Amino acid sequence: MAMKKLFLSLSSFLLLSTTFTFATQHQQGSWQQQGQCHITRINAQDPSYRLRAEGGVSEFWNHNSDEFQCAGVAFHRHTLRSKALMLPAYHNAPLLAYILKGEGIFGVMISGCPETFESSQQTQRQSEEEGSGRRQRFLDRHQKIGQFRQGDILAIPAGAAHWAYNTGDQEFVVVVLQDTTNNANQLDQNPRSFFLAGNPGNPGQEQEQSHGSRRGGGEQRQHELGNVFRGFDVQTLAEVFGVDEETARKLQGENDERGHLIIVERGLQVITPPLAGEEYGRREEGYGGRDNGNAIMAPHWYVNAHSIVYVTRGEGRMQIVNHRGEAVFDGQVGEGKVVVVPQNFAVVKRAGDEGFEWVEFNTNDNAMINTLSGRTSAMRGLPADVVASAYQISREEAERLKFSRRETLFFSGSSSAGRGRVASA
Amino acid sequence: MAMKKLFLSLSSFLLLSTTFTFATQHQQGSWQQQGQCHITRINAQDPSYRLRAEGGVSEFWNHNSDEFQCAGVAFHRHTLRSKALMLPAYHNAPLLAYILKGEGIFGVMISGCPETFESSQQTQRQSEEEGSGRRQRFLDRHQKIGQFRQGDILAIPAGAAHWAYNTGDQEFVVVVLQDTTNNANQLDQNPRSFFLAGNPGNPGQEQEQSHGSRRGGGEQRQHELGNVFRGFDVQTLAEVFGVDEETARKLQGENDERGHLIIVERGLQVITPPLAGEEYGRREEGYGGRDNGNAIMAPHWYVNAHSIVYVTRGEGRMQIVNHRGEAVFDGQVGEGKVVVVPQNFAVVKRAGDEGFEWVEFNTNDNAMINTLSGRTSAMRGLPADVVASAYQISREEAERLKFSRRETLFFSGSSSAGRGRVASA
Amino acid sequence: MAMKKLFLSLSSFLLLSTTFTFATQHQQGSWQQQGQCHITRINAQDPSYRLRAEGGVSEFWNHNSDEFQCAGVAFHRHTLRSKALMLPAYHNAPLLAYILKGEGIFGVMISGCPETFESSQQTQRQSEEEGSGRRQRFLDRHQKIGQFRQGDILAIPAGAAHWAYNTGDQEFVVVVLQDTTNNANQLDQNPRSFFLAGNPGNPGQEQEQSHGSRRGGGEQRQHELGNVFRGFDVQTLAEVFGVDEETARKLQGENDERGHLIIVERGLQVITPPLAGEEYGRREEGYGGRDNGNAIMAPHWYVNAHSIVYVTRGEGRMQIVNHRGEAVFDGQVGEGKVVVVPQNFAVVKRAGDEGFEWVEFNTNDNAMINTLSGRTSAMRGLPADVVASAYQISREEAERLKFSRRETLFFSGSSSAGRGRVASA
Repeated sequence: MAMKKLFLSLSSFLLLSTTFTFATQHQQGSWQQQGQCHITRINAQDPSYRLRAEGGVSEFWNHNSDEFQCAGVAFHRHTLRSKALMLPAYHNAPLLAYILKGEGIFGVMISGCPETFESSQQTQRQSEEEGSGRRQRFLDRHQKIGQFRQGDILAIPAGAAHWAYNTGDQEFVVVVLQDTTNNANQLDQNPRSFFLAGNPGNPGQEQEQSHGSRRGGGEQRQHELGNVFRGFDVQTLAEVFGVDEETARKLQGENDERGHLIIVERGLQVITPPLAGEEYGRREEGYGGRDNGNAIMAPHWYVNAHSIVYVTRGEGRMQIVNHRGEAVFDGQVGEGKVVVVPQNFAVVKRAGDEGFEWVEFNTNDNAMINTLSGRTSAMRGLPADVVASAYQISREEAERLKFSRRETLFFSGSSSAGRGRVASA
Repeated sequence: MAMKKLFLSLSSFLLLSTTFTFATQHQQGSWQQQGQCHITRINAQDPSYRLRAEGGVSEFWNHNSDEFQCAGVAFHRHTLRSKALMLPAYHNAPLLAYILKGEGIFGVMISGCPETFESSQQTQRQSEEEGSGRRQRFLDRHQKIGQFRQGDILAIPAGAAHWAYNTGDQEFVVVVLQDTTNNANQLDQNPRSFFLAGNPGNPGQEQEQSHGSRRGGGEQRQHELGNVFRGFDVQTLAEVFGVDEETARKLQGENDERGHLIIVERGLQVITPPLAGEEYGRREEGYGGRDNGNAIMAPHWYVNAHSIVYVTRGEGRMQIVNHRGEAVFDGQVGEGKVVVVPQNFAVVKRAGDEGFEWVEFNTNDNAMINTLSGRTSAMRGLPADVVASAYQISREEAERLKFSRRETLFFSGSSSAGRGRVASA
Repeated sequence: MAMKKLFLSLSSFLLLSTTFTFATQHQQGSWQQQGQCHITRINAQDPSYRLRAEGGVSEFWNHNSDEFQCAGVAFHRHTLRSKALMLPAYHNAPLLAYILKGEGIFGVMISGCPETFESSQQTQRQSEEEGSGRRQRFLDRHQKIGQFRQGDILAIPAGAAHWAYNTGDQEFVVVVLQDTTNNANQLDQNPRSFFLAGNPGNPGQEQEQSHGSRRGGGEQRQHELGNVFRGFDVQTLAEVFGVDEETARKLQGENDERGHLIIVERGLQVITPPLAGEEYGRREEGYGGRDNGNAIMAPHWYVNAHSIVYVTRGEGRMQIVNHRGEAVFDGQVGEGKVVVVPQNFAVVKRAGDEGFEWVEFNTNDNAMINTLSGRTSAMRGLPADVVASAYQISREEAERLKFSRRETLFFSGSSSAGRGRVASA
């Protein structure tokens, strides 16, 4: 007899992170692009596609159906078993999530302000001198951990990596709207998930086509997802994280058959800030500070901009990885070359023997960067327990992965884990 | 010898209604979408299509011509005979109108603030206690009536229902620009008129293709328009307005051959706020307050957002109507279903026996709703005389239509005019 | 060994001109429009097309390649020999330029506030009474001249005419990003250059297709450019500038084989504001003030809006010119006609015998106009030496070209240089 309704809107997003200044403006959908809008019949829709994993199942509505194309959004539902962890990932559009059932914790990794890495670093140095109290505040700037339960709303900005864990005994169910035509998305309207761990979307992962609502779009284009680390080579990963190649290989999750939802039986320890890790990092003072290798720029992505890179001097190697974990670029670039790095695509740059200088044009007047390794990285924003579970490594390895590299954006080229070719430079 | 020029721009819109916060940003036209812009020849254009009605004629320029596609706007001209009323309608994009000739009055129905219906209701209750002075102010929030004459500019927000009446002895002529690529329009670029009365665009209404400027777009797509009420069933209309089925049928204007411009010989009485009507509403205290039926949500549309409805519990019936008055959806929806309601499409929801709960994602961070019936509805915003003329009913019937339903958004399911099936629930 | 990086973003634009309020929002690229984004391979790119001129060479990257289509930007590089002048031009999108090498001076012509011509004129008159000190400040409002050298960044708003001159002994090299999907561009994504002098893109100008990166887009669409004055007839130009037809012909640069980059051997004298010229203008008091001809509206373009012109009374002649210097419209328009003038297209209106009245709808709530001739025109914003060099005329002729017409927007129709047909009116 009751009729209850809840309005969600993208303004909620501001509650989560008031410091983000993304334009949250929703644009016309692709009906617009096709010139005509033939809305002669609307259908009530069931999910059209399921992706099963160790920890549960994700169901995707057909975003190519006329209705969703019109609205310019995508929609999906995740069901996590008890103690299931959704591996960290970021998306090319803002998300709004509504918790239908269950309870848990989540984390969102929000980078420092754009292009203020040096001053951030200074702040941290200062904090370290002043003691642990302020240092902790600094760390908190790069990760947000919260609890949620049935009826809660989560809003995740485009490009912000996040994870979730079911702490309850019951299954946890969340529906998610992805605003693919939001101005914050400068790519196309297809929903894309850039995972930072595991092997999501691998052939071994059970996939199902639902027979319910098959209309709209002939051969259906599925939600695309993959592990970004798979597009980089193991040696580069070892170097930028300051770990050995075996750990680096774990980042790529090559033989990980658990899918994007994994079970962490022992539970997660995430509430306490990882102070021990920070100590560990200090013990290794100078670890990445040697000067006998060529410089590397931390793997990173731009949250809200394309980058157009013009090489002004020298030569370097660039690797660019898409959401399927494929290296869409891996090569040497010299003076006068232009490389376009699409929004959210992860990139690593390594200077050649003669150095590497470039100028970078970003298509946003407040371009925001996220790094994968280093002092202000998304990896540091992940609780050590999430890292250990995601990559199937020990907690100590997890801390090494997080804290080995103490630099922010530019790393010295060689480390004990570096490649021979580079060390000789 | 004189050369006179008048600049109009969408900023004028702000003068009319400073409380609206639509993004009035104009986007790239569909030339953009087609990838290339071949502007090799611009033509001075005459209207390409005429729609005659009892009260005058509307002429439409070909919005598919290269020039208008480039500019991302549509253009038309209305000529109203003396004592002609343009039936109330809303559009999927903001309008700018310039009065070429004549004089008259117009009304714009602007709903209360988004999602503040409860507090609005409280305000009203409070006002009623305090006396009629404040009540009147509240009513004014939902309708704006103004006079215009040659040389005036009117700006109408997207999705805001409006009407106009020629009070003069002469013909009244207005040219209208519709900014179809404005961000406020989340549908496609085709201009659409959602009428709230009459039978506009019916086969009996004389239509003419002009032979002037036929270029651009082969078979021409005409301006699309229709009566929204025609897509709902008569019983539902009777119920949501709290009137009998005969009156409900008048809303649909099935046998109305007058077209979208009608003659009101006796003139309109609209200046005085409809206090009598409000009294009438009070006399029927509790009319819609019985609890023996299932709940109905007032027919409504979102001015500036698509809605993605996810059913969380129970079951209900949804009807969705487009600008041609067609029911593009009419069915039962249960738990786990998703229904996409495009911007401006009118929708009614009725709870099933077990109740009906849903969560709704709106693609605007300030989603604004307009209801068709109930306390804050567009129907209440129409002067009783406009209602009587539009639906060919008596002034008393008009007042009943406006004031029977005293609830705002959620109605009790049964009324004296309700259907048997519902009353038994 | 060094790795240096410079972030550029469109916010820099604000540093140059804080009074501009363009929305600098970058939209989704045309990958969006094509519905799918197939980024399976990114290429490091060389320029694909070269345009040689007397003063140097411009190299254009293929903006139709997948990468640039995705990013929604175009990219090019200009190399100017010592003493080379880049002819004044404006573009349909904002530019960001980074100086790779050399030094020089540049000028940007920024018009007065939109639709405030009368008050500007009053201010000037007042200034003239108060003496030369304030007059100079007024003139500065319409031109910005600055110096630049290696490492500097320039930001040019969409539609703002600008020029550059290499003052150094070395070659001057600049790379330029054109943000074609910026909201400030209401045309399509193709980069367009509207030149105000010379004969750029003429068949005699040597053009080369690079054989480097030919992928993406089959037959390549080249950067389009031309002299806007070529689309107007010589008599109209003579009239609106108040000069003889020979000088008017120089504006069109018909036999100019120097291309878009020309050599000015003697150097440019631009730092001193052209006070002498203003004096010259005063000496000709009343030159354009006679009343024996029909009125002309100064040739102009809208920086940030399309115009939809509806003729309300009388008749007039309109000429509209595109970026290739083609007259896309040249004809008489009478009452009831609609003419769409695309953003940035230059237009001249001349009243017929019975006068010419119209209403103009602009698709921007802060539409900004730039005139080509008259008191607040782009031509006045050009240093006399640039004018003399660009059109191959004497400095005295240049001053006449700049200052003959003292009116702002509406000119009296006849002048000593006027056409017979007009003078008889």
